[in-house]
Amino acid sequence: MCRLLAYLGTPILIEDLVALPEHSLVHQSREAHEAKTVTNGDGFGLGWYGERPHPGLYRETTPAWSDENLKAVCGQVRSSLFFAHVRASTGAATSRANCHPFVVGKYLFMHNGQIGGHNQIRRPVENLIPDDLYQYRGGTTDSEAIFLAAFAHGLERDPVSAIAKTLRQLVDLQAKAGIVEPLRFAACLSDGESIWAFRWSSDVRPPSLYIRTKPDGIVIGSEPVDFGSDWVEVPKFGYVVVKRGEKSVSGCLNLHMAELAAA
Amino acid sequence: MCRLLAYLGTPILIEDLVALPEHSLVHQSREAHEAKTVTNGDGFGLGWYGERPHPGLYRETTPAWSDENLKAVCGQVRSSLFFAHVRASTGAATSRANCHPFVVGKYLFMHNGQIGGHNQIRRPVENLIPDDLYQYRGGTTDSEAIFLAAFAHGLERDPVSAIAKTLRQLVDLQAKAGIVEPLRFAACLSDGESIWAFRWSSDVRPPSLYIRTKPDGIVIGSEPVDFGSDWVEVPKFGYVVVKRGEKSVSGCLNLHMAELAAA
Amino acid sequence: MCRLLAYLGTPILIEDLVALPEHSLVHQSREAHEAKTVTNGDGFGLGWYGERPHPGLYRETTPAWSDENLKAVCGQVRSSLFFAHVRASTGAATSRANCHPFVVGKYLFMHNGQIGGHNQIRRPVENLIPDDLYQYRGGTTDSEAIFLAAFAHGLERDPVSAIAKTLRQLVDLQAKAGIVEPLRFAACLSDGESIWAFRWSSDVRPPSLYIRTKPDGIVIGSEPVDFGSDWVEVPKFGYVVVKRGEKSVSGCLNLHMAELAAA
Amino acid sequence: MCRLLAYLGTPILIEDLVALPEHSLVHQSREAHEAKTVTNGDGFGLGWYGERPHPGLYRETTPAWSDENLKAVCGQVRSSLFFAHVRASTGAATSRANCHPFVVGKYLFMHNGQIGGHNQIRRPVENLIPDDLYQYRGGTTDSEAIFLAAFAHGLERDPVSAIAKTLRQLVDLQAKAGIVEPLRFAACLSDGESIWAFRWSSDVRPPSLYIRTKPDGIVIGSEPVDFGSDWVEVPKFGYVVVKRGEKSVSGCLNLHMAELAAA
Repeated sequence: MCRLLAYLGTPILIEDLVALPEHSLVHQSREAHEAKTVTNGDGFGLGWYGERPHPGLYRETTPAWSDENLKAVCGQVRSSLFFAHVRASTGAATSRANCHPFVVGKYLFMHNGQIGGHNQIRRPVENLIPDDLYQYRGGTTDSEAIFLAAFAHGLERDPVSAIAKTLRQLVDLQAKAGIVEPLRFAACLSDGESIWAFRWSSDVRPPSLYIRTKPDGIVIGSEPVDFGSDWVEVPKFGYVVVKRGEKSVSGCLNLHMAELAAA
Repeated sequence: MCRLLAYLGTPILIEDLVALPEHSLVHQSREAHEAKTVTNGDGFGLGWYGERPHPGLYRETTPAWSDENLKAVCGQVRSSLFFAHVRASTGAATSRANCHPFVVGKYLFMHNGQIGGHNQIRRPVENLIPDDLYQYRGGTTDSEAIFLAAFAHGLERDPVSAIAKTLRQLVDLQAKAGIVEPLRFAACLSDGESIWAFRWSSDVRPPSLYIRTKPDGIVIGSEPVDFGSDWVEVPKFGYVVVKRGEKSVSGCLNLHMAELAAA
Repeated sequence: MCRLLAYLGTPILIEDLVALPEHSLVHQSREAHEAKTVTNGDGFGLGWYGERPHPGLYRETTPAWSDENLKAVCGQVRSSLFFAHVRASTGAATSRANCHPFVVGKYLFMHNGQIGGHNQIRRPVENLIPDDLYQYRGGTTDSEAIFLAAFAHGLERDPVSAIAKTLRQLVDLQAKAGIVEPLRFAACLSDGESIWAFRWSSDVRPPSLYIRTKPDGIVIGSEPVDFGSDWVEVPKFGYVVVKRGEKSVSGCLNLHMAELAAA
Repeated sequence: MCRLLAYLGTPILIEDLVALPEHSLVHQSREAHEAKTVTNGDGFGLGWYGERPHPGLYRETTPAWSDENLKAVCGQVRSSLFFAHVRASTGAATSRANCHPFVVGKYLFMHNGQIGGHNQIRRPVENLIPDDLYQYRGGTTDSEAIFLAAFAHGLERDPVSAIAKTLRQLVDLQAKAGIVEPLRFAACLSDGESIWAFRWSSDVRPPSLYIRTKPDGIVIGSEPVDFGSDWVEVPKFGYVVVKRGEKSVSGCLNLHMAELAAA
C-alpha cells in the first residue's frame, strides 16, 4: 500500500538509499517484499531539506522505476534529512497532489496505510482539517487529511500527542459509521531537525517499519534496503524520534486503543 | 481564463468543431482572441455522450495543441452532444481532476471564469457541496465546487434556478469575506438531452459566449470557431437552453443581482 | 515483456475485452500470469478501426491500471477490429512514441518480445527502415523498427513473408554481432480488414499467444482474458490470419530457422 | 522556437535566473518577447553540474510555467554552471527525450532554432551521427542530431570547428534536397568547465542571443531575464567561449557561408 524511507545523518547523495542498494526504494516500487501490494507504481515523491527551512519536493505520477528525472535528482542532490515514498493507491487518483510526501511550511509528512472505509467518511475526515490550513489541501488522499488534521491537535508543539489524538478521532469516525476495516498507519514526520516515525494500527497488523542506526546516520523504512542484519523492526504500536545532532532514538510508546481511550 | 465549446445536433466527428476549423478550440488553446489570457495550456478535456446515459471523458494535463491522443479521439468519435474545454488555470494545480468538464452521473459541466478570492473562502465554498455528493469531489477547483454545490439547490429539477441560487450564495460568501474581485461565470451543463449555457458576472464584464444555430446543430462557444457571420453573442447575464430534437434556443433570462436578491 | 490483445468480429465495446473480464488486459498490466515480468506498467496503447481507413490511437505513458481516460474510452468506443497493448519496457524510455501499437497509414502493429542485444545493433537495425518510411520513426523501440523494416520486404503485399524476411535479417544482424540473446516475437498486424498474428522465437521459447474463436468474433491475446476452456495456444513458430467476414483462422506455418534459411 | 539560458559563475540557486527575475526563463515560457512563437510550452529542461563530472538533468513535457517540481528543484539546487531551456516544438513530438538539454557523458547541449525542411532530410541527418554515439540518440529532434553529429567532427577537441563543420554539412544536405527554408542555430554547449555559445543562421536572421558579464558570473540567454542595461547582443554569426575561473569572454568569430565554404 506504499513503501517509504526516511534518512537523518551526515549528508549523503539521495541515491545512496533510494536508487543504488539492491532493495532500494526504487526497487521496492517494482517488487516490494512486505507490502500488501507487490507493485507500488502509482507515483512517487521525494522531499529533502537543503539550505532552506522548507524542504524541496519532487513528486511525479509515473512509476519510480522508470523515471529518469528521479534518478538524476537522486544522483546529484546531497541531503542530511530526506523522505522518499513510492505509492500504491488505495483509491484516490494518481496525481501529483496525491503523491507523498506532503509539505506544510517546514513540515514534511508521508504515510503508508489507510483509513479503512475512507470513502464513507470522507466528509467528516475533511472537516477535521483546521480552516486556516485548508488552503494546503492539494489532493484527495486520506493521508494528507491526517497530516493536516494533526495540526489541530498541536502537531507543532507535540507531534506524538497530536498524531495519537488524530488517530483516535479517525477511529471514532470509523466506529460511528459502522466501518469494520482497520485504520493502518506507518508514517514519518519531520520539521527539518527531527524525524518522528509511527507504526500503528487499529487491528493487530500495523504496516511493516524498520530502523537502522549507524554512527553516521539513521534510516527508517518500510523494508530494509539491503539484506544486512542491522535492521530492527520498529515495535508495533510504537514510535521513534530521531533528533539531528543527537543521532539517537529517543524512545518508544504504545499508542494502542486503551491508552488512546484514556487520553 | 479557459475556452469552452458545446455541441448539440446531428452526430458529427468531434474534430469538426474541436480540431479542424481555422479558430477551433485547439487553436484557441494556443491563441485565444477574447480571453483574459492568450494561452490556454493548462490541460484540456472532452466529454461526449454516446450510447450510454453517462458521458465519456478524456482529460489531460498537457496543452491541447500538442496532444496526439486528443487529435485521434476527435477524429474517430462521432457524437450528437459533446463538450470540450481548454484550461488556463486561475490558481489550482494542473491535474486531470482539475480539468473540465466534470461528471456526476449523467451530468456534464464546464466553466470559464472564477470565483474572485476563492483562496480566501475555499473552506465555506467546499461546505456548499452536499454530503452525499462529496465523493465526487475529485479536484480542488472553484469550478467543480460550483457544479457540485448546485445539486443542493435542485440542479436535477431546475438547472437555471439551481445555478442562480448557487451564484447568489457564492456572491454572499465573497461579500462576507470582503472580497472585491468579481465572480465571473460562463458555463455549460448537460444531462445528455439538453444543454444549459450561462453567461453571468457579479460585475459588468461576464466572459464572452457565443451561439451559432443551424438546422443540423447548435454550437455554443467562448469564441466563434470560424469567422462566419452566423455567430450571435449570448446576452450578458443571460442563459440559453438547447433541447435535443427541438433544436432550438428556449429563452434568455437575466440573473443580475437584483433578481437574485429577490430570489 | 508486454501483453497484447487483438479482436476482430461484430462491433463490441472495447472494455468488453480490455477492462471488464476477470483477467482483462488492464488486469494483466498489474498482474500478468505468463509473462517474464509480472508488471506491465510502462505505458499502454489502444488502436481501433472506426469509420475511417486509418485507425484511432490512444497511447499513454502511465500504467493502464490507473488511467481513467483509458477506462472512459474503452467504455464508449465500439469497434469491430481493435488492438490493445500494455508495456513492460526492455530498455527503451517510457514515452508515448515507444508505446504500442504503431501506425503507418492503415496499418497497425504491436509486439511482445525483443531483439536480444538490440543496443549493440541499434544502428544497423535502424538502417533496415526504408528511407521513405523513416518519417514514421517516432520512437526508439526495436518493435517499431521491425514494423517499419517489414515494409521493405513487401508487408503490404504479403505480410507473412515480409515478417519472416525481416526476422531473418534481424537474426543475421545478431549473429554478426555475436549476440547470443534470442529474438522473441509475438506480434499482431492489421490493415483494418485482417489480423495477422505471429508467434516466433530464435530459441525454443517464443512468447505466449492464444486465440479464442467464437461465431461473433475472434480474440488473440498474450493470455486468456478469462478462465474459460475455449482458448487455444497459437502453435509455437506459427502464425494465424483472421479475415473480416470470413471470421476464420486461415492456417499455420512454421517460420523456424531452417525455412528461413531456405528463403 | 524555444528560449534558452546558461550560467557560469559563483554557485547560485538556479531559481535566481530561471524562476525569480521579472522576465525569467519560466516567464518567457508563457510570454517570450523576441521569439517567433510567444508561447514556449512544449516541455522544458534543466541541466546542471554539481559534484560529479556528468550533469544532472530534469526534463518534463509540461509547460515550465505550471511545473511545481521545476520550481522546487530550482529553489533548492545551487550550481556554478547550468543550462535551462523552454521548448516550442517545430514538429517533433512533446516527449522528455525531445526536450533540451541533451547529455552525452560530461557534455550538455541545447538549441534554439531548426534545420529548415528537416522532415525531408531526416534520414541523411540521422546518418551524420557516428555509430558509436547512436546509443545516445534518445529522441527525434533535429537539435539532438546536430549535437551527436558534431562529435564526428571533433567536438571534444575543438567545439567551434566541430559545430561549424556540422552546420556546413547540414546546409549542404538542405541544398541537395532543394530546401529553401533556412537553418537557424542559437545553441549552448558545455563540458562542465566552459560554455560555448553560438549564434548563426544560413539566412540573415539568426535567433536572438544575449550575454551579461558580471564579476561573479556570466549569463547567456535568448532574451535578457530583466530589463537592466548590461545585456549585450552576441554578434550575429558569432560565438562566445566562457571559461570557468577565467570568467571572461574569449572572442567572437563569424561562421558565415563564405568561411564555411573555404573550410
